[in-house]
Amino acid sequence: MSVAADAGKKLLKLAMCQVMVGTDKVANLASARKAVQEAASKGAQLISLPECFNSPYATDQFPVYAEEIPASASELDAEKHPSTAMLVEAAKESKVFLVGGSFPEKDAEGKVYNTCLVISPEGEVLAKHRKVHLFDIDVPGGVTFKESDTLSAGDQVTVFDTPYCKVGVGICYDIRFAEYAMLLRQQGCKLIVWPGAFNTTTGPAHWELLQRARAVDNQLFCATASPARNPDSKYQAWGHSSIISPWGEVLATTEHDADIVYAEIDLGRADEVRTNIPISKQVRTDVYSQVKPAAN
Amino acid sequence: MSVAADAGKKLLKLAMCQVMVGTDKVANLASARKAVQEAASKGAQLISLPECFNSPYATDQFPVYAEEIPASASELDAEKHPSTAMLVEAAKESKVFLVGGSFPEKDAEGKVYNTCLVISPEGEVLAKHRKVHLFDIDVPGGVTFKESDTLSAGDQVTVFDTPYCKVGVGICYDIRFAEYAMLLRQQGCKLIVWPGAFNTTTGPAHWELLQRARAVDNQLFCATASPARNPDSKYQAWGHSSIISPWGEVLATTEHDADIVYAEIDLGRADEVRTNIPISKQVRTDVYSQVKPAAN
Repeated sequence: MSVAADAGKKLLKLAMCQVMVGTDKVANLASARKAVQEAASKGAQLISLPECFNSPYATDQFPVYAEEIPASASELDAEKHPSTAMLVEAAKESKVFLVGGSFPEKDAEGKVYNTCLVISPEGEVLAKHRKVHLFDIDVPGGVTFKESDTLSAGDQVTVFDTPYCKVGVGICYDIRFAEYAMLLRQQGCKLIVWPGAFNTTTGPAHWELLQRARAVDNQLFCATASPARNPDSKYQAWGHSSIISPWGEVLATTEHDADIVYAEIDLGRADEVRTNIPISKQVRTDVYSQVKPAAN
Repeated sequence: MSVAADAGKKLLKLAMCQVMVGTDKVANLASARKAVQEAASKGAQLISLPECFNSPYATDQFPVYAEEIPASASELDAEKHPSTAMLVEAAKESKVFLVGGSFPEKDAEGKVYNTCLVISPEGEVLAKHRKVHLFDIDVPGGVTFKESDTLSAGDQVTVFDTPYCKVGVGICYDIRFAEYAMLLRQQGCKLIVWPGAFNTTTGPAHWELLQRARAVDNQLFCATASPARNPDSKYQAWGHSSIISPWGEVLATTEHDADIVYAEIDLGRADEVRTNIPISKQVRTDVYSQVKPAAN
C-alpha cells in the first residue's frame, strides 16, 4: 500500500484498547489480541494497545517478561518471540495498523528497553520505538518509580507512514517532553499515538492536560492507550485512554476499567486548525536562537 | 534592592487586575491605577494589569492610543507619556512590582508595538516587553484579527529580577508558543506573567489549557491578567484572569466581569516539583539535536 496511491484518505477510525494486564503473559497476549479483534470488528483502522501489555508494570518484572525482537520477519519464532508474533498475527488477521503498546525488549547484550512495535495490515514491522525518556520520578506521598533501575533508554524519534498521514509514537513519560512532540510535528505528523500508564497521582493532575497541550501546541491529534487498573497491582494505572483533536477537544475517553475507546478522526481538521491559527508559520526562531540559557 | 540581599523570600502575593477598558483613555488610566491601589491595600506585592489597558483592543485604535515611552526617567513627561507616568506613580505609591499589562507604544519612527512596561516599587522601569508574536488568526465563524495590520513585533525574550525570583513576561498570543516559555524557564524564571486578552472563541477552548500547559511543562507559576468583558466592545474578551501552580493547579480564577484575582504563591513549590519530576535534567537534547525537520 503506497502512500501516494492513497493520498487524500482523510477519515481514520481509531481504537485505543485499555486492556487489563496481569501476571500471566499468555493470558495478557490473549486479551490483547482479543481486544484488537474486537476493535477491528467495529471498523477501527488504526488500533493501539497500552504500554507494557505483556507484563506487570514493575521494574523487577521487566527483565523477567522481556523478549528479544527479531531483526527480520524470517527470524520470527513464535516460541522465542511470543509478543512480537502475536502483534504480527493480530495486525494481519484484522488488516489494521497496530501500534503495539509496549513490552520489555531484551537486546543481544541483555539490555532491556520499553519498546513499541508498529505493525502494518500486511504484518510488516513499520517502526520500533524504544521509550526515550525513562520514568524516574519521586513524588513523596504519591508515586516513586525508577525505570532506569532495569531499563535502558531509546534514542530515536519515531514516525511511521500510513495512507492517512504520518503518525508519531511516544511512550508514556515521553509525553512530558514538549520537545519530543514538537519534533514529531516537524516530521509532518498529524497524529501521535502514546501508549502510556500514568498513575493515580500524576494521572488526575496531568494525563489529559499533557495530551491536550501536545495536541493544541502541535495542531495534531493525540491518542493514548493505558492499561486498565488492576486492583492486584502495586502500580495503579490511571486508565483514561483518550483521543484528542487538534483544537484540544476530548473526542473520546473512559474511566479506569477495561474498555476500548473509539473515534473517527478527520485529518482535514489538522490542516484547518493550522490554517486558522498559523503558529507554525509565526514561530520566531530568529528571536529564540539569540537567547542563551542562563545558569539557574 | 538587591536579589542577593533578599535571597530566600519564598512567599509572594500576586494580584491580577481584570479591569474594564473603554474608549476614554483618562478613565482607563484612572481605573487601572485604582485597581493597583486596591490590590496593594490587600497586601499584593506583584500586581499585573491586563493587555491593552489604555485602549480598546482594535487594530484601528492602536495607533490612536499609542504613546512614546521615554528612554529614561528624566525624560518622563506626564502630558506626553500619560500611561508610563501612571504606571510609575502607581508602582511607587503602592510600593509594588507592577507588570503594566500593555498599551500601544509608538517609537520614534512611528512604528507601533503592543508593549508591557514593568515597574519596580521604587518607580524604575525594570523591563519593556514588546509582544513578540503578533495575533494574526482567522477562525471562520469565530474570530478574525490581524494585529500586524497596524502593529510591529518585538524581538526580545523578557525577564526581570525580583527579590522573590526571576519573572518572565509574555503578552497574550506569546503564550501559544511553547518555545517562548521554554526560553523563560531556561533563563531561570519561576513565574511568568501574561497580560492577555483571549476572546470568546479561543478563550473557552485554550486559555486555561495553555496556562496550565506552560506551568506544568516548565514547572513554574503562570499568572494572567485579561481585560474585563466590555459589552460595548467589538472584541469580546474572555476574562478569566488566573493564577496557576507549577503542578498545574488553578490557584485562583474568575469569570469575565471586572475583578482582581489573588493568590499567595510559595516559590519553593517550583523547586519541589522540579525535584519530584526532574524533566529539566532528563531532557534528551542528544536525541533532539539529531532530528532534522522534514518537509511537511
